[in-house]
Amino acid sequence: MARVVVDVMLKPEILDPQGQAVQRALPRLGFGGIADVRQGKRFELELEGPVDDAALAGVRELAETFLANTVIENFTVRVEESEGASA
Amino acid sequence: MARVVVDVMLKPEILDPQGQAVQRALPRLGFGGIADVRQGKRFELELEGPVDDAALAGVRELAETFLANTVIENFTVRVEESEGASA
Repeated sequence: MARVVVDVMLKPEILDPQGQAVQRALPRLGFGGIADVRQGKRFELELEGPVDDAALAGVRELAETFLANTVIENFTVRVEESEGASA
Repeated sequence: MARVVVDVMLKPEILDPQGQAVQRALPRLGFGGIADVRQGKRFELELEGPVDDAALAGVRELAETFLANTVIENFTVRVEESEGASA
């Protein structure tokens, strides 16, 4: 099975209160040098068949239709090489 | 400025109701062939200084301490090459 990752982030011109809350907390917590934080969503889809152009087109349509709100969000679709999760 | 991405996902053995809800909705919506969906968080951090080992160690500590709940979540830290967001 192949893993396809869909990342959904708010568009740069859209205010991101979640990310701002994290960023403002950082100096208090002792972490400096971070100019901006934005928070989004990551979907990991396990495809049953081969990851060919048709499958990726399907995932792209799925992301555009249901996973992302394309009025305020951008998304990226990419195939992830199989690897163990770190940390 | 350099962008560092922190991905936070529930550990594989932890139930993911959000991902399950998405997965169960897919056949109804006309998307087949997807065996599993897991949903997590993606943080984009813009670092002010250079991305050296010290900066990455700081981000890793930050992720472990505040962005992820390491009892139930795994995280990965990676430097993202500068690129335009797609879609």
